[in-house]
Amino acid sequence: MNANKRKIINDPVLGFITIPSDLLYDLIQHPYFQRLNRIKQLGLTSLVYPGTQHTRFQHSLGSMHLMDECLTQLRVKGVEITEEETEGALAAILLHDIGHGPFSHVLEDSIVQDIKHEELSLMLIQEINTELNGLLATAIAIFTNTYPKRFLHQLVSGQLDMDRLDYLVRDSFYSGVVEGSVGADRIIKMLHVANDSLVVETKGIYSIENFLIARRLMYWQVYLHKTALAGERMLVNILTRAKQLTRKGESLFASPALTYFLTNRANKALFESTPEVLKQFTLLDDADITCAIKVWVNHPDLILSTLSEHFINRKLFKVKISSTQFSEDEITTVQNKFINTFSISAEEASYFFSYITLTNDTYNEKNDNIKILFNDGSTKDISDVSDILNTKVLAQNVHKYFLCYMPL
Amino acid sequence: MNANKRKIINDPVLGFITIPSDLLYDLIQHPYFQRLNRIKQLGLTSLVYPGTQHTRFQHSLGSMHLMDECLTQLRVKGVEITEEETEGALAAILLHDIGHGPFSHVLEDSIVQDIKHEELSLMLIQEINTELNGLLATAIAIFTNTYPKRFLHQLVSGQLDMDRLDYLVRDSFYSGVVEGSVGADRIIKMLHVANDSLVVETKGIYSIENFLIARRLMYWQVYLHKTALAGERMLVNILTRAKQLTRKGESLFASPALTYFLTNRANKALFESTPEVLKQFTLLDDADITCAIKVWVNHPDLILSTLSEHFINRKLFKVKISSTQFSEDEITTVQNKFINTFSISAEEASYFFSYITLTNDTYNEKNDNIKILFNDGSTKDISDVSDILNTKVLAQNVHKYFLCYMPL
Amino acid sequence: MNANKRKIINDPVLGFITIPSDLLYDLIQHPYFQRLNRIKQLGLTSLVYPGTQHTRFQHSLGSMHLMDECLTQLRVKGVEITEEETEGALAAILLHDIGHGPFSHVLEDSIVQDIKHEELSLMLIQEINTELNGLLATAIAIFTNTYPKRFLHQLVSGQLDMDRLDYLVRDSFYSGVVEGSVGADRIIKMLHVANDSLVVETKGIYSIENFLIARRLMYWQVYLHKTALAGERMLVNILTRAKQLTRKGESLFASPALTYFLTNRANKALFESTPEVLKQFTLLDDADITCAIKVWVNHPDLILSTLSEHFINRKLFKVKISSTQFSEDEITTVQNKFINTFSISAEEASYFFSYITLTNDTYNEKNDNIKILFNDGSTKDISDVSDILNTKVLAQNVHKYFLCYMPL
Amino acid sequence: MNANKRKIINDPVLGFITIPSDLLYDLIQHPYFQRLNRIKQLGLTSLVYPGTQHTRFQHSLGSMHLMDECLTQLRVKGVEITEEETEGALAAILLHDIGHGPFSHVLEDSIVQDIKHEELSLMLIQEINTELNGLLATAIAIFTNTYPKRFLHQLVSGQLDMDRLDYLVRDSFYSGVVEGSVGADRIIKMLHVANDSLVVETKGIYSIENFLIARRLMYWQVYLHKTALAGERMLVNILTRAKQLTRKGESLFASPALTYFLTNRANKALFESTPEVLKQFTLLDDADITCAIKVWVNHPDLILSTLSEHFINRKLFKVKISSTQFSEDEITTVQNKFINTFSISAEEASYFFSYITLTNDTYNEKNDNIKILFNDGSTKDISDVSDILNTKVLAQNVHKYFLCYMPL
Repeated sequence: MNANKRKIINDPVLGFITIPSDLLYDLIQHPYFQRLNRIKQLGLTSLVYPGTQHTRFQHSLGSMHLMDECLTQLRVKGVEITEEETEGALAAILLHDIGHGPFSHVLEDSIVQDIKHEELSLMLIQEINTELNGLLATAIAIFTNTYPKRFLHQLVSGQLDMDRLDYLVRDSFYSGVVEGSVGADRIIKMLHVANDSLVVETKGIYSIENFLIARRLMYWQVYLHKTALAGERMLVNILTRAKQLTRKGESLFASPALTYFLTNRANKALFESTPEVLKQFTLLDDADITCAIKVWVNHPDLILSTLSEHFINRKLFKVKISSTQFSEDEITTVQNKFINTFSISAEEASYFFSYITLTNDTYNEKNDNIKILFNDGSTKDISDVSDILNTKVLAQNVHKYFLCYMPL
Repeated sequence: MNANKRKIINDPVLGFITIPSDLLYDLIQHPYFQRLNRIKQLGLTSLVYPGTQHTRFQHSLGSMHLMDECLTQLRVKGVEITEEETEGALAAILLHDIGHGPFSHVLEDSIVQDIKHEELSLMLIQEINTELNGLLATAIAIFTNTYPKRFLHQLVSGQLDMDRLDYLVRDSFYSGVVEGSVGADRIIKMLHVANDSLVVETKGIYSIENFLIARRLMYWQVYLHKTALAGERMLVNILTRAKQLTRKGESLFASPALTYFLTNRANKALFESTPEVLKQFTLLDDADITCAIKVWVNHPDLILSTLSEHFINRKLFKVKISSTQFSEDEITTVQNKFINTFSISAEEASYFFSYITLTNDTYNEKNDNIKILFNDGSTKDISDVSDILNTKVLAQNVHKYFLCYMPL
Repeated sequence: MNANKRKIINDPVLGFITIPSDLLYDLIQHPYFQRLNRIKQLGLTSLVYPGTQHTRFQHSLGSMHLMDECLTQLRVKGVEITEEETEGALAAILLHDIGHGPFSHVLEDSIVQDIKHEELSLMLIQEINTELNGLLATAIAIFTNTYPKRFLHQLVSGQLDMDRLDYLVRDSFYSGVVEGSVGADRIIKMLHVANDSLVVETKGIYSIENFLIARRLMYWQVYLHKTALAGERMLVNILTRAKQLTRKGESLFASPALTYFLTNRANKALFESTPEVLKQFTLLDDADITCAIKVWVNHPDLILSTLSEHFINRKLFKVKISSTQFSEDEITTVQNKFINTFSISAEEASYFFSYITLTNDTYNEKNDNIKILFNDGSTKDISDVSDILNTKVLAQNVHKYFLCYMPL
Repeated sequence: MNANKRKIINDPVLGFITIPSDLLYDLIQHPYFQRLNRIKQLGLTSLVYPGTQHTRFQHSLGSMHLMDECLTQLRVKGVEITEEETEGALAAILLHDIGHGPFSHVLEDSIVQDIKHEELSLMLIQEINTELNGLLATAIAIFTNTYPKRFLHQLVSGQLDMDRLDYLVRDSFYSGVVEGSVGADRIIKMLHVANDSLVVETKGIYSIENFLIARRLMYWQVYLHKTALAGERMLVNILTRAKQLTRKGESLFASPALTYFLTNRANKALFESTPEVLKQFTLLDDADITCAIKVWVNHPDLILSTLSEHFINRKLFKVKISSTQFSEDEITTVQNKFINTFSISAEEASYFFSYITLTNDTYNEKNDNIKILFNDGSTKDISDVSDILNTKVLAQNVHKYFLCYMPL
């Protein structure tokens, strides 16, 4: 290995991270990957947990490190994994988040449309692959689940993938919500492969139960914390208003890249037909949004300036939560207040509040199951093995309804 | 407060622990309390988790510290707690384990009979109270749940008492089983009192779910670990054999205190009728047992010496676990092996194996519930609130059957 | 205290931080303080230690928390501190960094001139004080060291102030350089006041030695790490070039606030004569700089675009370090390379390298000493007490010379 | 590797420890090694730091783990180390403390004479080597510094050996004295070999300075803490008195092994001439001492019973410390008090106090130096490189004088 590329990175969460190969070093140095150092992992969660300033860069490195440890463990247990597969799996997990935009879950609702960050990740990985003359072929096959050894894909994207293990440990560490930690080390030591499928050895059952409950705690206590959600809804409304004004021809301060997305309707079709969109996308990060909104505080548009000023100075929407739908009446009452107070139209009033439904599967779109491996070689789903976890709840989605509005 | 008694103790788990008053200083200095420094919190668990060498002394100090923090929190929330009640609750939790003997759960099966460590704790607290001219009256009332403010007793002995919070955090820390940690700080911040009953504020639901699952993990992964259980069963058999030999008139090396318990049948009746028993009990600690067994390695009795040698040198019983009862046949087969191998009687053979049933409520005899406090002032049981935890399982006991035997 | 303002903030480093009073809550909510959440504590250090993304907001809260603990300790020891002084000291430490700009040490060399962040902090505190009708009078007196009890100022700005204790613990935590940690808890427990001066009890000598060595390690290993310095020099050169181009009349993308500082010469005189400067200063944060530089990558000016592109994509200046001055020759050789390669003037070439002298007192301008309190009431300087630390070195500054240049 | 021997041990300090080979598994299972689980690493330090209950067993495993990591690092850097050397170095460090007795530094002053624990370790390793038909030949050569590659011995016993790295990290962890931690991971990453000598790469200078200061802090704050020393002096006096009484023919309760050492003069000559002594030595652990002293509380001898009662119930000797010798007069004054109070002889009075000189090299008998490796291949002593550490002090011993006495 090239001596200049043999680097060790200090990670406060996982300790020293060794860069495993020249290829991985080059990927980390790539401008698309360096961009992740300017995108916070948890977006607006720092409104509630000020410690959560960590970036997708760190998370991606951490996931790669756990993948490295996991593959080593599996090989010790006799699972056959070639050098090429190792590098492929490491590259796939390193780059899995490369398509994230600033405040990503927000952006998917406002700046871009009908396209998910996973699709953008794949487009970018393919572009890098072209630059590298095909060195990422195995990584792409693993990432897209077309590689014959399916368990490698599960390690990149599955119920117990290295992505999740890293983000649960990391987000718990940085938020200070210590109960959210999941013993990634121990879980990795208990992973195995049976019938080309990732499984957990029996003695790992309690760790898995704990993992599922810790994840649930992190969702409701951190990821879906109402104050962070309030901030996100404000951000969506601000960006939607900015797009509306831009398209009406008003002039708004913004970086060229952000202007591009305020002006154009960046949906999947456009990304596929127009290479320029992806190019512009790679220029965006958290700074474009923050910088613009600070300037919009002084914009003549009442809606844009009010929301921007409140957002920047942390005067957040109030939130009402319910486990059942809010009635039309309740929502209309809120809307009318803004119509009357500001003498604005119903459409304009709609920027001052937001009504959304959340399900805990917001972060849970991975539908394969966690399988337990018994000593006789048979496997069972964790929901059939664990007596304490309510299997129906594990299968179901929990819905919560949030009505957020600017306090008057 | 007396300047000489204003001490700060360094605890690796909870940080600096301040001794809150002169009375508590004097209790800590009492020989009965100092004895706890010679009794390991987790007995033979160190056979599996070598880090678990911590003592009941540390755990008792830690519980007192959490109680101090908890009472401060409750007072900030407007719960009325007097100075006297504070000192009473602190003394009660500090002394709650003072009746533990060496390898306590084992001793309750062998050295003493029909008497629980809680009863011994009370006897000893009453004796200290007499020495201190009644200064522990409130502590005793809280400990025995006769004090009017019932929630104070719940903090000493209940589903969310300071005992549990400390031992889960502490045992997780020393064993290295990090997932067993329970966020004691956060739970304490969410406690409140409603209708003289300890309750948890709604936002604490996920922490409580996590607490229940972490506790479950600690039971099966640490407290009831099969290897530690194997060691405990050996210890019970060794002590039972030693008693039998002693009562038959054979001479065994032992400290005078241990000899007393090998000779006499120390049941509840004897403790109540004969003050000497309690006196002798306070002289016992882990060292008496360890020191004696090392000497018994060379005793002429084959059973005693074999078991002692295996125990000291960590050649432990093998364990078979089942979720259903073992058949008579299976057990007899094991027994016959020893009869044949050593040419001994069935009764003698029974020392070389052990068949036990374990339920996860071994450590769970506290039957009050965890109540959640809603914003409207109503309360509900956690099992009615949490959708993910299987309520029946929370109410039920899980049985596991262990067949342990010396390998031949 | 107002129930809505009784908040607890989760800090991964120090645990739960309680906001001590309504005034402090209001200060934390102030837009000037919220701005600190958009300024990283360690600027470009994250180029080397990717974990160091924490903000001045967190550090300020942490310093306030340590101050709270420290004042409590001192009062227990009998030091008289009134409620008003407590709130004053808490406000002073909370706001001590409020005058920091983005990438602050860099900005002081480029965007603003001849004015230090401490002076800007004072200006902003005075402005907030006016808003609050004088509620910060005591805080200002303590901050400016005009308050009669001088030790309160030492806790805000001195060899052992709460600022340092927090940043050493915090920067060690986030960088993963664990040896840099300083036992803030223990040091706080050993502080006392003698003759209106902060002193350390004798038993704290070893902790202080360790503090001095840990601080030294953090300087050279983290704060003055050559790679972060290389990034800083690039940033200075980029901003200097941007100012030059702006003043020549070229159009550069930048937020209005940044444009203001590129256009005007913001020195102390201007800050004092023109209130608009301070106003514009409070609108700047890290995002303005990052967002602009990303756009400058495409600027027609070769120097600006080249440096910007290298900076954003982490192609950093190489660094040569020496403990003696570099010769004129060595520097000219470097300069000539750029003159020849790009066919540019000597003045233009100077943007592609940087030659600086660093002393470890860069962060060490506080010249009071650490005094040890002996049992007889006398005090001595730590350098007279510690036999292991070289007193001359403690008094002296270490110089290191850095020659940074863009690799060709 | 034998599947049954492929074990992972959970260490709260270092994480998961993998047993590297069958031989090492067998050594860990050996009764001589298992005995270390019954000997506390820090003896009576738990009188002050109740968290320090960890055993020499854990420390030995931890040292082995660090050795494993260190050898891996060195091989990555190109240092040639064979499989056999690896196993030899691992075995040597695993067994380096096997000759420790209970409360070891105390025992060397009382129970045994003129023989150090290192000599006893060697005797026991040789005995195990015989059992294993010479499998430990390389380990013994490394341990005794007769192996050609001298740096392997330095890793077992030198200024930066794995023993020290583990005990500083571990003792800091368990005592809660966090500043004593030394960044073992980082130091190991900076080790290299030059001219068959262990060296530290230049960038490690600050870590080494920090290591030296942290070690010093641990000595004075933990290892030589006056309260623990007071306990040790009491223990020496108790055992000395017990020996005296035994040799006068009085009957004392003690385990057979302890009785052996009370009766016989176990010096080096006896160990070498009489195999039985070593055999008896391997039967001793902390429990023998604790168990006996508890019984001696009731012995008719006033001196033995008084000291034992005080020791067991933590009524410790008071301590006066001075940096200069105490005068004859001061000592005689103390002695006379006991003569007069108890009407005893001068010789008898001497049991109630103790006068000792301590030097910080008590734990520092390893006289090789720490060498720094420069980029040009040259090496220099750390004391010539570090400007902040006082080189003379590093070379000198600090003396402190302790006068301990039972309070009357």
